[in-house]
Amino acid sequence: MKREILKALKDQKEGFVSGQEMSERLGVTRAAVWKHIKQLQEEGYEIEAISRKGYRLLKDPDHLDGDALELDRSSSVFGKKVYYFESVDSTNTMAKKLAAEGAVEGTVVIAEEQKAGKGRLGRSWESAKGAGIWLSIILRPAIKPLDAAKITQIAAAAVGTAIQKNTGYAIQIKWPNDILMDKKKICGILTEMSAELERINFIVVGIGVNVSQKEGDFPNELKHAASIESCTGKTVSRRSLVIEILKEFEELYFDFLHTGSIEKSIHICRKYSVTLGSKVKVIDKEKEIIAEAVDITEDGELLIRDESGGLKKIISGEVSVRGLYGYTPS
Amino acid sequence: MKREILKALKDQKEGFVSGQEMSERLGVTRAAVWKHIKQLQEEGYEIEAISRKGYRLLKDPDHLDGDALELDRSSSVFGKKVYYFESVDSTNTMAKKLAAEGAVEGTVVIAEEQKAGKGRLGRSWESAKGAGIWLSIILRPAIKPLDAAKITQIAAAAVGTAIQKNTGYAIQIKWPNDILMDKKKICGILTEMSAELERINFIVVGIGVNVSQKEGDFPNELKHAASIESCTGKTVSRRSLVIEILKEFEELYFDFLHTGSIEKSIHICRKYSVTLGSKVKVIDKEKEIIAEAVDITEDGELLIRDESGGLKKIISGEVSVRGLYGYTPS
Repeated sequence: MKREILKALKDQKEGFVSGQEMSERLGVTRAAVWKHIKQLQEEGYEIEAISRKGYRLLKDPDHLDGDALELDRSSSVFGKKVYYFESVDSTNTMAKKLAAEGAVEGTVVIAEEQKAGKGRLGRSWESAKGAGIWLSIILRPAIKPLDAAKITQIAAAAVGTAIQKNTGYAIQIKWPNDILMDKKKICGILTEMSAELERINFIVVGIGVNVSQKEGDFPNELKHAASIESCTGKTVSRRSLVIEILKEFEELYFDFLHTGSIEKSIHICRKYSVTLGSKVKVIDKEKEIIAEAVDITEDGELLIRDESGGLKKIISGEVSVRGLYGYTPS
Repeated sequence: MKREILKALKDQKEGFVSGQEMSERLGVTRAAVWKHIKQLQEEGYEIEAISRKGYRLLKDPDHLDGDALELDRSSSVFGKKVYYFESVDSTNTMAKKLAAEGAVEGTVVIAEEQKAGKGRLGRSWESAKGAGIWLSIILRPAIKPLDAAKITQIAAAAVGTAIQKNTGYAIQIKWPNDILMDKKKICGILTEMSAELERINFIVVGIGVNVSQKEGDFPNELKHAASIESCTGKTVSRRSLVIEILKEFEELYFDFLHTGSIEKSIHICRKYSVTLGSKVKVIDKEKEIIAEAVDITEDGELLIRDESGGLKKIISGEVSVRGLYGYTPS
C-alpha cells in the first residue's frame, strides 16, 4: 500500500494528489492513507500536506530499497524485482542463493553494506556502509559456460558507460572487469555462474562501485582504489547511478541475446581501454608472461603479443597493466 | 554413541564384544549400551546377545545411512562425511546447497528416493525409492571451468570400473557420461559447477545407478534403460557398490590432482567405449552432424570425423550412437 501511495505521489510530479482520490483509487480509508504518508515521512520523504489540495512530494531521498528502485527504474526486466538489505555477507552469495531457489532473470540484490564482500579469486572487497553501490544481478542466458566471459565484457561496457553518463567524468576500462577514473579503480565486477558442462543454470554479476569514500578510507593495500566523489569532487546520487547501470546493462545484454554478438559492448570496452596498446604482465598457470595488449576480440578475449612476437588469446585471468596498480615501468 | 557401538561390533568381526568392555571404553552404563543395541536391532542389525560372552553382529543390513557408509568405506576423503536422506528433491540440488554453505571436498549426499531427480539439460531422472543409488559428491579441485569436463570422464571411468568389479558383469561407457550393461543405460552422471570465470568454487557430481528395477518398471520413454539386477540376474548390495564407487572415484580423482592428467581415466573410457568406431549423430548449436567417433582425447573431448573427412573435437554435448537408444541404423 505504502508503495502505491509513493507511486501516486511520484506520478503527480510537481502537483498535489488529494487524499480522497488516493483513498478511492486504492480502496482504503483516508486515515490509512495518512498513516502511510506519515511512515514515508519517517523514512525521509519530504511530503507537504495542504488541506483541500492534498499531498505533494517535495524531496525524494536517495534510497536504494526495493520500492524506491523498482518505481524509478527505466529498465524493464533488470530491477523489476529488487531484494534490498541493510547489511549482507555478500550480495553475490545472496543472489546465488536466490537464483538457486528460482529467482527470475533481472532480479537485483542490493545492500547498504557487505560484511564479507567478494572480489575475484576469493579476494575480499571493501564495502563500507552507505559508501558505495554493492549490487548483484541474476541472469539466465541460454549460453554455454565457455561464453560466460562475454557477460563480464557486457557488464564492464554497461557500467563504464553508466558511470560516465551519470557523472560526466571520463572513465577507463581495464580488461576484463575494472572501471577506473584518473586511472584509479572505482569499480570491480565479479561474474559467477552455476552450470552444467554444456548449459548455464544462472549467472550472477556482482558490481561494486566506490561512490563516496575519501582518499584515506581505503586500507593501505588498496592504494590504487578511489571513489567517484573523490575523483570528480561532486556528490553522486547512488539511486540514479544504479538506475543508469540497470538501463545500460539491460540494453547491451538484450542486444547480445538478440544478435548473438557482443560487438557493441566490445566497441565500448576498446574505446575506453587502458589495457590496449600497453605492456601487460599476464599470469597464466603460475607462469608470468610480459606482452603487449593488442586487441579485444569479438568474443571478449584479450589478444596479446608476447616478446617473441607470438599472438595469444586470453579468456580471463590476472593481467597487470604497466603503470597501473603497482606494476611500475622498469 | 550408537555409531561407536556399531563400530565396536563391526571391528570384532566374527567374535563377541562384552557389554562391560563397551561400557568402560565408551564411558557409559551397561544399560545405555543395551539401549543402543536394541535400537540397532530395530534398524535391522541382527545382534546376538549371550550372557558372559557379550554381543555379536550376525547380519549387517544393506543400509546406506551415514553411519553405515562412513564406517565401512575404504576411501579416505570421499564419504568421510555423508548426508543421508530418506527422500530428497535431488541429491545434486542438496549437495550444491551444502557446498555453498562450505561442505568439504568428498562430502557425499545420498538418498533412498529423489522426488525430482535431475538428468542433463534439465531433464528428469527416475529415482524410485530404494531401487538404485542416488548420490552426489562435492569436489573442490583447483581447476578452471573449462576443465570441468575432465571430472565427468574421471567419474565415468570410476563408476564403470566399480560396477564391473562389484558385479563381475561387463559394462560399456557411452561418451561422455552413461554407463551401460548389455548396451542399455544403467547409470547416468550429471556434473554441475559453481564457478568464477577462471576458478571453480565447487563441483557436484551426481551419480544415478539403477540397481533393482524390473524391466517393466521404467516408463515407456526410457526403453533403453535397465538395472544392474535385471541385466546380471543377481542381487546387488547397494552399500558395497557405493563403497566401491567412492574408492575408485577417489583414486582416479587424486591421480588427476597429483599428475594434472586424466590419462588413467581416459584409458578406461576408451577401453569400454561403445562410442569409438561408431557412427554418431552430434547435435551442436541446433545443427545435426553425422560423423564417426575416432578417439577420446587426453582432455576428455570426443574426436569425430565428419562426412567430408574433417576432424572436430567435442567438449560435451548431445551425441547419439548408431544402434543405441533409438538411433537406429539407416
